[in-house]
Order: sequence, then structure tokens, then C-alpha cells
Amino acid sequence: MTVNYKKELESAAKSMILVHEADLLIKMIVRTIVQKVKVSHAGVLLQDKEKDTYILNFSRGAKGLRIPQGFARMDKDNPLIRFFGERKNKAFFEHGALVYKEAKKILDRDIPSDSKQLLRKVLYQMEMFDVQVTIPSYFREELLGVLLLGNKPRGKAFLREELDFFTALASDVAMAIRNAWLFKELEAELEKKHHLFIHTTVALAAAIDAKDHYTHGHTARVTKISIDIAKRLGQRIKEVSEEKFLEDLHIASLLHDIGKIGVPEAILNKEGPLDSEEKKKMQEHSILGATILQPIQELQRSILGVKYHHEKYDGSGYPEGLKSDEIPLIAAIIAVADSFDAMTSDRPYRKGLPVDRAVEEIRSLSGKQFHPLVTEIFCELYKEGKI
Amino acid sequence: MTVNYKKELESAAKSMILVHEADLLIKMIVRTIVQKVKVSHAGVLLQDKEKDTYILNFSRGAKGLRIPQGFARMDKDNPLIRFFGERKNKAFFEHGALVYKEAKKILDRDIPSDSKQLLRKVLYQMEMFDVQVTIPSYFREELLGVLLLGNKPRGKAFLREELDFFTALASDVAMAIRNAWLFKELEAELEKKHHLFIHTTVALAAAIDAKDHYTHGHTARVTKISIDIAKRLGQRIKEVSEEKFLEDLHIASLLHDIGKIGVPEAILNKEGPLDSEEKKKMQEHSILGATILQPIQELQRSILGVKYHHEKYDGSGYPEGLKSDEIPLIAAIIAVADSFDAMTSDRPYRKGLPVDRAVEEIRSLSGKQFHPLVTEIFCELYKEGKI
Repeated sequence: MTVNYKKELESAAKSMILVHEADLLIKMIVRTIVQKVKVSHAGVLLQDKEKDTYILNFSRGAKGLRIPQGFARMDKDNPLIRFFGERKNKAFFEHGALVYKEAKKILDRDIPSDSKQLLRKVLYQMEMFDVQVTIPSYFREELLGVLLLGNKPRGKAFLREELDFFTALASDVAMAIRNAWLFKELEAELEKKHHLFIHTTVALAAAIDAKDHYTHGHTARVTKISIDIAKRLGQRIKEVSEEKFLEDLHIASLLHDIGKIGVPEAILNKEGPLDSEEKKKMQEHSILGATILQPIQELQRSILGVKYHHEKYDGSGYPEGLKSDEIPLIAAIIAVADSFDAMTSDRPYRKGLPVDRAVEEIRSLSGKQFHPLVTEIFCELYKEGKI
Repeated sequence: MTVNYKKELESAAKSMILVHEADLLIKMIVRTIVQKVKVSHAGVLLQDKEKDTYILNFSRGAKGLRIPQGFARMDKDNPLIRFFGERKNKAFFEHGALVYKEAKKILDRDIPSDSKQLLRKVLYQMEMFDVQVTIPSYFREELLGVLLLGNKPRGKAFLREELDFFTALASDVAMAIRNAWLFKELEAELEKKHHLFIHTTVALAAAIDAKDHYTHGHTARVTKISIDIAKRLGQRIKEVSEEKFLEDLHIASLLHDIGKIGVPEAILNKEGPLDSEEKKKMQEHSILGATILQPIQELQRSILGVKYHHEKYDGSGYPEGLKSDEIPLIAAIIAVADSFDAMTSDRPYRKGLPVDRAVEEIRSLSGKQFHPLVTEIFCELYKEGKI
């Protein structure tokens, strides 16, 4: 093994710190060992923390070695795992590596019979995999994995210096893998927390939805249409293409009617058109929704969607009579989705419009009630059968 | 520098991968260099991503060197930062290290005047810090930091081999720091998401609270008392001491009355005692709350608190008439906090009890309505003035 290969492997091990995929890491290192060091084949037994087993990841190597059936996964009872997992067995191999030829000699020595039996099984496994050297790697006292090395060219023995190098490499890899795990765990936790947040918001929004007898499923439909519009709109407006915008819109559309919680049931459920006083109360829901969410720092952009989803492009909407580009885009998107769902839903005092008629109506109100570009995108999606 | 120190520094650099505190990391490495390599003093200029500056972190070293005023933080215009930040200047130093004595000679060479001017300023800074060698470290093309080394004993020059070693070390440290940053960012994101979830839940719960005219602030008070009880109870029951339990309880107490969203306003706001039909409707809120949250996988334990917070220890509660240990502890805790707040709050048809009378009432119902241990803890907290 020349010094160059060492450098290459060392630097691979270092850059692995920033590779946060344990599987990829292992494949990289095994491939590099086989290609650069000309070992016939190499493998890694890697701990699978969740399933409490070890997974075998072998290179085929020069000989095209295949893993015997049932050996891709080894549990804690497997001789190799047991042998390296038990502290006392460290006495049987020097400098962190178990070399087949040397271990064979130990069998002739006077050692406890249970150790002898275990070692015999380990050697049998090494024969089966045609492996000359096995190197365990630990994090603190925990066995993270075992590096398995095949044969050097022309059956030469591994040098002490080479074994030292592989031992150090194995410990680098162990560190990198542990780091990758920590990362993965943290990412999984983040994902979980995000789902918890969204699911809870969905559940509470649906419960509030249910208060308004005539709008069953309204929130879910508005949310879906809003997101669909934004995804397409993102092809034209950079700001909208950002994940943050989609997230804010998602929350805003889920919560756009949250203020209805403050509207009396008698008004929400009235069978017939509202008089002007009742209408005023009903219209308060948008500003009330914004008030409920106001203390939440992270929702400031979503709140714009909640507060202004009843503004109209020509300035005739509420609560502030904003017009054209004064209306935040997030609200302009919800406005179209919300109106479309309201138009197509039945009310006790009128039947809902057919979808094509509602789309026509929305198109005719482009630039009056609705943002022209948002309307255009909405109509485009309808034409493609996506509404 | 003996090989031993090298090993020590190398292994320090490796284990740093798992130290996710950049500041700590820097202190470790600087201290080790000064102590083991007997450099008079050493320092690190470390990028502060958020503030877009570099922070100087110096060891005092043997000479007790002090950082000149105003030099603890360097912005991007600082000569050292500019010099190492610009690609073209790499031509002026070999093998990744800028050595004062060698750089001095460059000034005599025919190089562009702007480079000469910048280098002159760099050398002036090195003189000011009494630094012989500076080693930049990068992640990809970005300057993460600069390692500054003082003098070797008896003013000897650094050997090429030593410089190579420090260059490799600096790159290890850069990798570790980048890793630490990524970790920190991820952790911060997780924290943010958690707050978003809690704050949104608080806001929605408060809005639902507001529907029930007589229970203003009820949810917040019940949540506080429940958490206080659990924190103390955790000293006696291991399960309760776990962070997961406290989190589940937090959510459960915030949402314990969420089902009231399905109770008609006429009943919620009735001025006077409820008749049996109304009472039945009102009592449905606990099971309704559980139904609303049921789809959320992560809330299964919190749901137990919502569903069973009106069960009584003797089996006379609702919705299922569970008794003693059949009642989940999370619900038994909320039951005490909820009842205490209800007892001490005014209703249109009766005044609330004084706090001491309410505590007495709860104590007298221990083992009948309330879980004995939870009651005991609650009374303990009251005695200590914490309720």
C-alpha cells in the first residue's frame, strides 16, 4: 500500500464527516479500499440501531464473492458480533485487529473453553467470507461496526503498519457514522415536529369548520386549491416558488376562517341571507382570525393571508379596502380558492354553481375582485383538469 | 514537536467531530497547541456566520499577550480576512501557511502594488499579535477561520513538516466547525418548530376558551398548575419525570377543553345551572375533544388526558366511569388542576371559593374524586405558596 492511497483514504474519511448518510459512507469507504489498496474484497458489518441488529455490506471485489443466504443481517447472537462486543475478548487480538492466521494459533493455547468455542465460530465465519482481517470499531464502549478485509495480492500477509492504518481508519469511520446518525435523528425529529404542527392545525381548523354547518370540508378544499395555484405561480414569481412561501400559504389557508370561532352560531347557521348587522359580524371573522394569531412571531406572513383574504382587487373588499398590489399575494391566492369553493357549495337558500360556471364567473371578475395573474393561473389549472 | 503531541492533536481533532460547540472546539485546540507544542501563544480567527464577521480567540500563552482593544471582532475589510479571502493571494504563500519571515521577502519582489499594500498590512497585524505563522482554513471556497501561531522556544523557525501538520489540523478543525454549525442550525430549527406548534396550539385553545364566557384564562391556569404538579410528581414517579411526559401533558392541558367547540353556545353561556339534557351535552366535550385529535398519531398520550380529565377516582366520573389506576395519570393530574380552577372561578349563579377553601375541598375528595398521590402533591405545592 503506497502512501498516496493512505492520503486518499484519510481524506475520504475526513470529508465523510460532512456526509450525513451512513450507508453512502460505508459504500464509499469499502469501494475505495478495494480499488486503491487492491484487497480482493472488503465488507462492513454496521449496527442498525433501530432494529438492534448488524447489517452486512460487502463489496463483490475481484472474486465476485457473494454473501451466503441469510447473512445480510446479523443479530447480537452472531459469533462475530458477540466476540467483538465482549470486553474480555480484546485480549485475543492486538492493536485492534483480528488476523486470521494469528487467531488460529490462539486456539492451540490454554484459554477458557467458552472463549475458545466462540473464537472457533468467528474463524469459521471468516473462512466463509474468505476474510483475512477483521477490525471492530467502537464509539465509547459500543460496537458500531466491523471492517472485514479479504486477501492481499498473491496472498501476502498484511503488514503491522497497514493494520494500524486500517484501525485508525475504522475509528474515523465510526466517528463519522455516529455523527451521521445524530444528524439523521435530529432531522427525523424535525420532520415529526412539523407533521405534529400541521396535523394539529388541520384537526383544530376542521373542528372550527364543523361549527359552520354549511361549509363542511371547506378548509381542506381551499387549502388544496391554494397550494396548487401557488405551485404553478411559482414558475412565474420567484418569491412564490420558495418553500417558505408554500409553508406560510399552507398554514394561512388552513387557518383562513379561524376567526369564525368568534362569530355567533346563530349567524353562522342562519338559514337565509344575512341582514346588514349580521353581515358585519360575519365579516369580522377575517380580522378576528388575524388577532387570534397575532402573538405568534413565526406566523406573521400567514396572518396576512388570514386577514386579507376578503380584500378585492378593485378596493371594494374588507377589512381595509386594499387594492391591487396592496393586497398580499398570499391573500390574493386564498381569495380565489375561497370564492370558488363558496360559489360551488350549496347553501340553504341557494344551490351551488356548476364548476364551469363558477370558473367563468371568476374569470369575469379578474382585475375587479381577483388578482389577474392568480385568476389566469387558476383558469389554466381548470383547463388542465386540475381543479 | 514530538510524534506524541501530533497523535494527541490528531485524536483531539477527530473527537471534535462529535463536539457540537464550535467555541469549545476552538478553545480546546488552541490550548492543546500552546501546552503541548510549546508555542508561545496561539489564536484562531473564526467566522461568525450570523454577524458576518470574524471573532478572534487568543490564548494568553507564555507571554501573557493581550488582544489590542477593538480587535476581538474583525469585519470582512480587515487585511487578514481580505488577504486569505481572495483566491489570487494563494500564490503568495506555499503549502497553506503564511510564514512571517518568508512573506517579508515577497515585499521585495515585483508584485502588483495592491497585493503588496495588502500584504504589508497583514504583516503589520502579525507583528502586532507577535505571530510567526498564519494558516487559513476553508470549507469549499469559504474562509472559515485563520489559525495564528506565536513563537517556538528560543525563536527557532517552524519546520516544513510542522507547518504541514498544522495545515492538516486546521482543515480538520474547519470540518468539525462546519459540522457543529450544521448541527446548531438544525437544533435551532427544531426549537423554532416546537415553539410554533406550542404557540399555535395556545392561540387556538385561547380562542376556544373565549367562546365560554365564564372561563376566561382557564386553559392557561390549568396548564400551569398541571405542569407544576407533574414536575414535583416526577420526583416520585420515573415515568412522569421524563421530558416526553411533560410535553404530552403540556399539550393535553392546553387542549383539554377543545371539545367545547362542539357544545352549543346557548349551553356554554347559560346563566344558571344546566338541566340534565344540557349537562349531557356539556359532558360530551371530553369525548368530542378526543375525537377531534384522534387522527394525530403523535398525540395519542395527550388524547388520554383530554378524554379522561372528568373521570373520578371512585369510578363516578365520565365518559367511561374508569376508576383508580384505570385513569391515566396524565388525566388525573389535569382533573385536579381543572377542578381547582373551576372551584375558584366565579359563575353567574355562584361566587368562586377562596383558594384555601378550594384546596381543603380537594384534599377532602382525595381517593374519592381525585388521585391520592396527585392530591398530596397539589396540597404540598399549595403549602409552599406555589399554587
